Amino acid sequence: MKTLGIGLLGFGTVGTGVVLGLQKNQALLENRTGLKLELRRVADLDLERDRGVSLPEGVLTRDAAAVVASPEVDIVVELIGGRNAARDLITQALQRGKPVVTANKALLAEHGAELFALAAEKGADIFFEASVGAGIPLIRALREGLVSNQIRSIYGILNGTCNYILTRMEQKGLSFATALKEAQKAGYTEADPALDIDGIDTAHKAVILASLAYGFNVPMRSVAVEGIQGLDALDLRYAAELGYRIKMLAVIEQENGEVAVRVCPTLVPVAHILASVSGEFNAVLIKGDEVGDVLCYGKGAGRDPTASAVLSDVVDAARNLVFHAARRAPGFVGYNAQGKLKAVGESDVRYYLRLTLLDKPGVFGQIATILGQHDIGLASVLQKEKSAGRQVPVVIITHHGKEKEFQAALDELDKLPVIGARTVRFRIEDF
Amino acid sequence: MKTLGIGLLGFGTVGTGVVLGLQKNQALLENRTGLKLELRRVADLDLERDRGVSLPEGVLTRDAAAVVASPEVDIVVELIGGRNAARDLITQALQRGKPVVTANKALLAEHGAELFALAAEKGADIFFEASVGAGIPLIRALREGLVSNQIRSIYGILNGTCNYILTRMEQKGLSFATALKEAQKAGYTEADPALDIDGIDTAHKAVILASLAYGFNVPMRSVAVEGIQGLDALDLRYAAELGYRIKMLAVIEQENGEVAVRVCPTLVPVAHILASVSGEFNAVLIKGDEVGDVLCYGKGAGRDPTASAVLSDVVDAARNLVFHAARRAPGFVGYNAQGKLKAVGESDVRYYLRLTLLDKPGVFGQIATILGQHDIGLASVLQKEKSAGRQVPVVIITHHGKEKEFQAALDELDKLPVIGARTVRFRIEDF
Repeated sequence: MKTLGIGLLGFGTVGTGVVLGLQKNQALLENRTGLKLELRRVADLDLERDRGVSLPEGVLTRDAAAVVASPEVDIVVELIGGRNAARDLITQALQRGKPVVTANKALLAEHGAELFALAAEKGADIFFEASVGAGIPLIRALREGLVSNQIRSIYGILNGTCNYILTRMEQKGLSFATALKEAQKAGYTEADPALDIDGIDTAHKAVILASLAYGFNVPMRSVAVEGIQGLDALDLRYAAELGYRIKMLAVIEQENGEVAVRVCPTLVPVAHILASVSGEFNAVLIKGDEVGDVLCYGKGAGRDPTASAVLSDVVDAARNLVFHAARRAPGFVGYNAQGKLKAVGESDVRYYLRLTLLDKPGVFGQIATILGQHDIGLASVLQKEKSAGRQVPVVIITHHGKEKEFQAALDELDKLPVIGARTVRFRIEDF
Repeated sequence: MKTLGIGLLGFGTVGTGVVLGLQKNQALLENRTGLKLELRRVADLDLERDRGVSLPEGVLTRDAAAVVASPEVDIVVELIGGRNAARDLITQALQRGKPVVTANKALLAEHGAELFALAAEKGADIFFEASVGAGIPLIRALREGLVSNQIRSIYGILNGTCNYILTRMEQKGLSFATALKEAQKAGYTEADPALDIDGIDTAHKAVILASLAYGFNVPMRSVAVEGIQGLDALDLRYAAELGYRIKMLAVIEQENGEVAVRVCPTLVPVAHILASVSGEFNAVLIKGDEVGDVLCYGKGAGRDPTASAVLSDVVDAARNLVFHAARRAPGFVGYNAQGKLKAVGESDVRYYLRLTLLDKPGVFGQIATILGQHDIGLASVLQKEKSAGRQVPVVIITHHGKEKEFQAALDELDKLPVIGARTVRFRIEDF
């Protein structure tokens, strides 16, 4: 049985999961693959902490560069996270022609172009199944399972923290602040939840999926990102009354060869399968020209689900090494040098609008007139009897229109004296 | 760019989809893979029929064996279906060391052991992504994406015809016969729908998934199969009142190393994501020890979705040929020679029971007593006021018990003079 040496950089939560997974399911992995995967070096700055798992003498070191350079290490697994150190170490591994397995979405989203180019030059592989949706075999699905498909669009619930918060707000009527606190207590967020709730984490993942689907490096700066931190429980309730749930959605769409990526809280029809994705779960819906709709669902974070993805990549890397088949199915192929991004405002969209109106005769007519002047039709209107004060919330579900027309109409509306507060707006996806 | 020759056996619906897909997305496939896939021979008994697609002169032939033998054919795609001819041709291809791509679930479920053994002996590959769930990249997920996981269980909605019929019965209150007619009209069934509604098609797919998950050939005869043809719309309604939907489910479970496979209409809690899988869609939920719950969803049949899976396998085969990496990730590895099947009756289960009782005092007490004697507790009871006649339906949702105790209890119950008709029973899955 051939043996391959693994060098692990980063002995944190996921790193510990990888070690545990390798130990627990070693026999199974050998049986299924005919290969022996041996953890030969582990680098971490903290040599003392008890991770509840034991490593053989001499495996743990503080010197990550030495792990990468070690002739005993055939495959480098980068689980340090962050940018600089991780980027340097991956670069060193690729320079030596060693395959790299990484879960580092931020690094790939921001420096993927450079790293993938180096991998191609050196004839080495970068595997990154764990970077999006943890153990859900999404990258494999897109790279191999749907290889013969033109990808029309991708819709993803890609951040478990956001989805947990939205689910709790919806099901229990909690405020955003209370639901966030719950998520923190339940261990679903980082100490600083900003990357999650701001949408940046989702955007990193969206950029990776978009680049893979369309064959060019889609830059982070091209993604329109809106977080969930301003969300009012009221809107989840009104959306529910109108037959929708609000999900933090990454939307990747292609039209006439132009790609648009956005990340924002979005209304999803309650009967659609994405609306059923609740709690900390993730899901991605991919629309291919041949396959139609394919959805993959599972836990998008956590020690063991992430380790599962890392280990599947380690096996892939090991198989390529044994068969001298590096770059058999490259992680990313930049085949579309002419890849274009869609200009902002050109998308065909539809909105949920919550207007705060002064309760006077003729007010609604003014609103409808302005929308009409921008070619925006009304699909449904929900007006509640006012509770107190002179302001009344009116919710409008619109028909489709041009995004820039919505922008212009909303700018006009919010200047009207009869509007009591900035109009709340969410995109609606009909899929 | 390296070119590989494809020989297609069977120019029916899916075969036509493969030809169309290769033509339409040829440039994309070349860009993504760096390989040229050339359709060099197509065999079919019907040389005349217009399939709406044109082949170069000399490609179409009636001689399938010659296609397999042709030195111009590197990869053999078997889409004939059926047993004998397909089995002979696949055998011939493997004998020549050529990789085979097939969608033939019946053949693999019944003769997989022999074909996979031959493939191993000859150092050739069999790819079969299209055999289960069409374009949903399920086989890849199980074989590669979850390679480091012990699979605890698999739950599959694997037959679009059954799911379409059940969805229509549930949503529109249709009878089984009417819903079947609709499915036939909509083109979701074969001319003879028996294989679908009897559950045999689902069982074929379950056997393939179970063998892959557990590393031994799970035989068709070990699968407990029950079709949907006897289903009464009444039970879908009662199930809905109690918070469940009825789905035709393949259940593959492993306990203490013993594997059980069954296929039957099953109650699924309405909030579970599998309950949201409606119409002709398929979905498979896989529970792994590392990854947790992973679900894959999509169209499980049809020309283009199936062609998408076939082409993904053709690419896999082509990559292995170019890199001399045949058997890099074998389709099936029989690593578990000691694989055991669970004895019937030993499972821990829970049931929906619809009893037809004579409306007399004390009757329900008799029923509850017999269930109690078999250690079966009641979770909920639904009794409607009787409409006409002396018989009244009573629906019981039980707690968990041993399957053989249920069997014994139901045998006793159905002999009671107060029971007016055979008790209707469905398994409940809580996942």
